Amino acid sequence: MVMTSVQYSLRALADHVGGVVHGDASLSLHGLASLEQATARQLSFYNNAKYQGQLTATQAGAVILHNNDLSLYPGKNAIVVANPYLAYAKIAQLFWRRPKASAGIHPTALIHPSVQLGYDVSVGPYAVIDAHCVLGDHVVLGAHSILGEACVIGADTELAARVTLYFGVTLGQRCMIHSGVVIGSDGFGFAPHAAGFEKIPQLGKVLIQDDVEIGANTTIDRGALDDTQIASGVKLDNQIQIGHNVKIGAHTVIAACTAIAGSANIGAHCMIGGASAIGGHLTIVDQVMLIGTAMVTNSINEPGVYASGTGLLPRKEWQKSAARYRQLDALARSVNRLKKQVEESKHHA
Amino acid sequence: MVMTSVQYSLRALADHVGGVVHGDASLSLHGLASLEQATARQLSFYNNAKYQGQLTATQAGAVILHNNDLSLYPGKNAIVVANPYLAYAKIAQLFWRRPKASAGIHPTALIHPSVQLGYDVSVGPYAVIDAHCVLGDHVVLGAHSILGEACVIGADTELAARVTLYFGVTLGQRCMIHSGVVIGSDGFGFAPHAAGFEKIPQLGKVLIQDDVEIGANTTIDRGALDDTQIASGVKLDNQIQIGHNVKIGAHTVIAACTAIAGSANIGAHCMIGGASAIGGHLTIVDQVMLIGTAMVTNSINEPGVYASGTGLLPRKEWQKSAARYRQLDALARSVNRLKKQVEESKHHA
Amino acid sequence: MVMTSVQYSLRALADHVGGVVHGDASLSLHGLASLEQATARQLSFYNNAKYQGQLTATQAGAVILHNNDLSLYPGKNAIVVANPYLAYAKIAQLFWRRPKASAGIHPTALIHPSVQLGYDVSVGPYAVIDAHCVLGDHVVLGAHSILGEACVIGADTELAARVTLYFGVTLGQRCMIHSGVVIGSDGFGFAPHAAGFEKIPQLGKVLIQDDVEIGANTTIDRGALDDTQIASGVKLDNQIQIGHNVKIGAHTVIAACTAIAGSANIGAHCMIGGASAIGGHLTIVDQVMLIGTAMVTNSINEPGVYASGTGLLPRKEWQKSAARYRQLDALARSVNRLKKQVEESKHHA
Repeated sequence: MVMTSVQYSLRALADHVGGVVHGDASLSLHGLASLEQATARQLSFYNNAKYQGQLTATQAGAVILHNNDLSLYPGKNAIVVANPYLAYAKIAQLFWRRPKASAGIHPTALIHPSVQLGYDVSVGPYAVIDAHCVLGDHVVLGAHSILGEACVIGADTELAARVTLYFGVTLGQRCMIHSGVVIGSDGFGFAPHAAGFEKIPQLGKVLIQDDVEIGANTTIDRGALDDTQIASGVKLDNQIQIGHNVKIGAHTVIAACTAIAGSANIGAHCMIGGASAIGGHLTIVDQVMLIGTAMVTNSINEPGVYASGTGLLPRKEWQKSAARYRQLDALARSVNRLKKQVEESKHHA
Repeated sequence: MVMTSVQYSLRALADHVGGVVHGDASLSLHGLASLEQATARQLSFYNNAKYQGQLTATQAGAVILHNNDLSLYPGKNAIVVANPYLAYAKIAQLFWRRPKASAGIHPTALIHPSVQLGYDVSVGPYAVIDAHCVLGDHVVLGAHSILGEACVIGADTELAARVTLYFGVTLGQRCMIHSGVVIGSDGFGFAPHAAGFEKIPQLGKVLIQDDVEIGANTTIDRGALDDTQIASGVKLDNQIQIGHNVKIGAHTVIAACTAIAGSANIGAHCMIGGASAIGGHLTIVDQVMLIGTAMVTNSINEPGVYASGTGLLPRKEWQKSAARYRQLDALARSVNRLKKQVEESKHHA
Repeated sequence: MVMTSVQYSLRALADHVGGVVHGDASLSLHGLASLEQATARQLSFYNNAKYQGQLTATQAGAVILHNNDLSLYPGKNAIVVANPYLAYAKIAQLFWRRPKASAGIHPTALIHPSVQLGYDVSVGPYAVIDAHCVLGDHVVLGAHSILGEACVIGADTELAARVTLYFGVTLGQRCMIHSGVVIGSDGFGFAPHAAGFEKIPQLGKVLIQDDVEIGANTTIDRGALDDTQIASGVKLDNQIQIGHNVKIGAHTVIAACTAIAGSANIGAHCMIGGASAIGGHLTIVDQVMLIGTAMVTNSINEPGVYASGTGLLPRKEWQKSAARYRQLDALARSVNRLKKQVEESKHHA
């Protein structure tokens, strides 16, 4: 991890997350690491039985864990909490030392005179901000940010270096947008005619609410007529594609490389595994979990866990299975015929 | 949608698309919206029986529809046309008010003295244009455009902000390239040897013809020996990957996140669904449609509609099916043995 | 291909790769092309029986091929070598004439005074290099490069235009990084709690060793606690996603659009086909080959070739097969029951 000079006592860290100290409360810790890599002055955490061997062997100065697991780590320094993963997240925030954006506006940033800037805004070198944009307090725009006309950025939102917003994009408060993200590009709409295709102008906008995180190189298209909408607390990983007019409900989490076609309507509190593909003009209700590489071609009307795909096989076996897959309907019909024949032969016997 | 102050009478809009007015031809309309969201001064369109309920309930001032559907919308204001979707596209173009690129060359743009600029070219801030590039009339380069040596951009082509062309890329006329696109990067070629891999220099170029649209963060590699070629009228969505030496025929449309491996040769007038994967060194004839997430490992020699994948299942059922998939060949052999046994028992009976 | 004025005799080219000349050793060649496109002053190569027809018909001035194939190309000019593909790579390097980066630092590049620059470093226009970065000798940074704090770039490494490194990224020597790449963005980590999600700070770094190539728009996340690590000689194609804490062993090659989830541990000398998806917290041993679109959900403990998916079908057949896939477990149970019944009826007979 990135080295920092900050340190905390085990007591202070436990207090920060409402945990109970076991062992030496005065122990001074200067960072976090995995069970495997942690040293005597670092804290680690344990919340998965898969890593029990690593817990036993760890050199960590102390470990965050659940009361039920304390017996696996007897006589050592520990912080006991109800939710070790959440406690780890909160303590990691104490040790987080990202380079600070320079306060203020870099002299090379090009900002249209009509732009409204909040208090304590930071704009990196070579940023370009078009007319009528509005930036809230404490907004941070990284180097090479590009904001089209009339974008609105809520307070405490940060754009990493090289994020591009087309015109008319709204971001809420406390959002984090990573490098290479493009928001507000044209949706994919073309009306076929005799000589080719007629472009369908994309007249809608993109509305993103508060506390949304968007991963590197993700793309979000503007709406065709109505707006593309992403609700509060949504977390999008890297290289996700969101088509025009998609709606994503609050606190839904989507892993990398997922493709969502136009006008899909995804509920709240969903968890979508990586490299999934979701078709257009369909609805997924709240509380749906998709296992990675899920292929969704119809609406999902019941909460639950869904998956698709064949699993992985050695190539030779795969070739056989894939060949049989083509004949699966014929095979099933054969079985049905056999059933009848066997039934009949019973009656004859 | 983005608000505009422009308005048209129903008569004028119908005339623009060769349609017939029903109802109040003098009605003044100031925009387009979906059936669900349109208000009394907005136009909408109907071309899909799925949305018949929305047609009945719409508050739209008028609707574009086909003569066959007029009875579903009796006594209301309408524009009747043969192709409502195409008419919608053309009318939407009337209402399209994107922020205009500033005419002229931004003073921060770095343009090599050998570059040839056409009439009325617009180059955004911090663009970098290398030696021997040629830009046609009315070309628009967005902020942060980067053009390597000897690129050629046809008249009326627009690059959104932050598009990168390596050296030797040719774009035709009236193309639209979205943010984050990279064209002309090295194809993926390495010759294995005892100690690792030898880089295969990518000596080819990229040739893109007229009226091509390319979506955000799509990547197109230069050829290894010959050139990567994309014909007129091709439309590529976001985050598509085109390998070296790929050829794509005229008016083929490819949805987002599709991956096309090197030297694939794709016909004209194909429609390729999103998140499809097309293997290298294969041919797809004209007029092929692939359903999204199609996996193409062999040439497709007949026009038609193709698909692959298993569809989506609840996880527990999926686990059972996936486990059985591994045994599919054994299952089919069992059925064949059973058939024989049942046949034989008949003869014995 | 890009035209060059350089030319070599067939003898000189053969000598360069330790090959044997057949035919006119004094023939002067000015470039390479495919068998199909090569002209009388160009060299081509042959190493795949699929292209035997093209070999017979080629207009190439000479062909690189294996001794075993010489009889297919009798009486012509040839370079005979043990590995024609490798010889082609090495000869292509002779003909490679990419535009040279201007030596020196462009006046618009913003370089923090604490940055250490090696000998003969080239930094393109509008690059931004933060504090405490260290660049080795002959490093080339393209236009619009962005380096966060404390990045280290080894000697002879090149970043194409518009590459973004977050803080604390290390690249080895002789690496090639293509446009749009983002390295060091936050891994995707959020701890669920009652009101939504708590961000897990990503405290790790990214360590990339020597001779690594990374394709356009690929993203590599920094580690959560420990570091994301990519070993020497790894080749990554375009639009690949590497999650936090992933480890990739030496000389592994990964084709485009592959997604690798967090904490996956991939061995050395693997070959991973395009659009594959590899789950998190699993291990793949050395020498594994995955056919494109492989879906890996469990560790792979044996070297070998693996695949997944159903293959491509005409849509109507696919619909039937996909429907039967849902019932595959029931079908297999039916077959087992039938087996028993047939066995029993035999005993009764």
